[in-house]
Amino acid sequence: MFDNAIAVLDWLGLIVFAMTGALVASRRQMDAVGFVLLGTVTGIGGGTIRDVLLDHHPLVWIEQPFYLLLCVLVSLFVFFTAHLVQSRLRLLLWLDAVGLALYATIGAERALEAGTAPLVAVVMGMITATFGGIIRDILGGERSIIFSQEIYVTAALAAALAFVALDALGLPREIGITTAILVGFGLRAGALLRGWSLPRYRPRPPRS
Amino acid sequence: MFDNAIAVLDWLGLIVFAMTGALVASRRQMDAVGFVLLGTVTGIGGGTIRDVLLDHHPLVWIEQPFYLLLCVLVSLFVFFTAHLVQSRLRLLLWLDAVGLALYATIGAERALEAGTAPLVAVVMGMITATFGGIIRDILGGERSIIFSQEIYVTAALAAALAFVALDALGLPREIGITTAILVGFGLRAGALLRGWSLPRYRPRPPRS
Amino acid sequence: MFDNAIAVLDWLGLIVFAMTGALVASRRQMDAVGFVLLGTVTGIGGGTIRDVLLDHHPLVWIEQPFYLLLCVLVSLFVFFTAHLVQSRLRLLLWLDAVGLALYATIGAERALEAGTAPLVAVVMGMITATFGGIIRDILGGERSIIFSQEIYVTAALAAALAFVALDALGLPREIGITTAILVGFGLRAGALLRGWSLPRYRPRPPRS
Repeated sequence: MFDNAIAVLDWLGLIVFAMTGALVASRRQMDAVGFVLLGTVTGIGGGTIRDVLLDHHPLVWIEQPFYLLLCVLVSLFVFFTAHLVQSRLRLLLWLDAVGLALYATIGAERALEAGTAPLVAVVMGMITATFGGIIRDILGGERSIIFSQEIYVTAALAAALAFVALDALGLPREIGITTAILVGFGLRAGALLRGWSLPRYRPRPPRS
Repeated sequence: MFDNAIAVLDWLGLIVFAMTGALVASRRQMDAVGFVLLGTVTGIGGGTIRDVLLDHHPLVWIEQPFYLLLCVLVSLFVFFTAHLVQSRLRLLLWLDAVGLALYATIGAERALEAGTAPLVAVVMGMITATFGGIIRDILGGERSIIFSQEIYVTAALAAALAFVALDALGLPREIGITTAILVGFGLRAGALLRGWSLPRYRPRPPRS
Repeated sequence: MFDNAIAVLDWLGLIVFAMTGALVASRRQMDAVGFVLLGTVTGIGGGTIRDVLLDHHPLVWIEQPFYLLLCVLVSLFVFFTAHLVQSRLRLLLWLDAVGLALYATIGAERALEAGTAPLVAVVMGMITATFGGIIRDILGGERSIIFSQEIYVTAALAAALAFVALDALGLPREIGITTAILVGFGLRAGALLRGWSLPRYRPRPPRS
């Protein structure tokens, strides 16, 4: 049952990230095939990079092509319905926030499952959560979301860290996963709603 | 003999894609080493990503370094002869069209060979055909060809789809390969000559 | 003892490349997490791509998370000290020159170790040396260093070539490694100090 819950969260992450890819395609006024390309790459990109790095083959979407089909369907759905949305950028940012929290948590979980050290699991969570969006922005010619003034990568880091820490404390994974997702989404929601941010590097004159 | 034909088409794809990479280097006025870098990455990029995703090792150019040598020679040839061409951009687009059709077909064939599902094979064809050019444009600082107003990714999709469909119908692979290449190149040629395109997403006011 | 020397050079390369990534983050006025992201990707990027291509698993930083920890510490160090530097761009270029020479040499050595052909080893050296910086510049939105007017990729090529050639001549690897690093760094230093460059492609009117 827990495995089922993980699978459902994984699909949910795939759906929201595929939507963000398709929304970038809509901002670029691409055709339906462009929507499918950007939607699919964003949906499966982060997890694919994680599994290639972990040497975890066959990749999940090669073994279960339903993952691809879902990306295609979601992208086409966005192609036909995006005009119904008031602010597509706003929607993109919120869907991305959901995907970020889900994929950071699941990415860390998959890495621990594969037997990595805790630090590696945290990094894998961050990679899973952010690289789909990074590739989306590069392919779509958008300013990368990692330049966001507000907390972004930090939310993925916090989610992955929370999951790995609670797992190390021996708590059941259900609790770790729920907490981690809430932490990641909560931080990013605070960033979107209230502009939460960390201190940024400011150049100062060198000491002479 | 059929395997030989596939190998020849693979080399032809490598040559034309390496040429497009070198032509981007010429547009950037790079030195000969820059030509070789961009030519090689474009020539072997799409197939490399496909084989890493399929976990198909050793990579073809690691096992047969002649693939690399060919990229180097082609890139140097372009370095010394590109000025003979009237419109290097035009040449680039047509060579890219040939490579697109070849690699989409061969990529799908390799994936079926590796035992993937049909949908995965179609995606692998698209990846093989488009990612060399995508990397080329990112490295070369060019506007990505996937933003092309006319049909581009769609031509790769059609070629891969044609091959997979004819293969599923049990037709001999010679026929499937020939048809798929003609479909892919034909569509892209129509795009270049007549501006064929699919309907693009146009923002409309949301229903209120 | 020689293996130790290689490991030390590898760590040195990681440190200087992580510093260049963090310096790009400082130019973008990112927060500390952004520094760690760019520093880590730049530090381990080139070697990771090499090992994925060579199918050499587990990746070194997955097996020895200390590599990741070092990237994190170096990036944070730069976050707190970068303002002490007169010209961060100048520092970035010199650190990058050191990393380029080290990684080109080590990358070629690792490839020969894995049994590849000499030409493949040269290419692997170039990939190890340049792809960390290429990814850094793409993620950081910087003009790619491969467009540098002066010798850049060529220095990596020369280092890798020197190592592979001396190895083929049967010289001890200590000599090959020392020579290769000096060749690579010397060429890049000449480029930075004296503007050494190769002839660049210049468009000429086509013969009619």
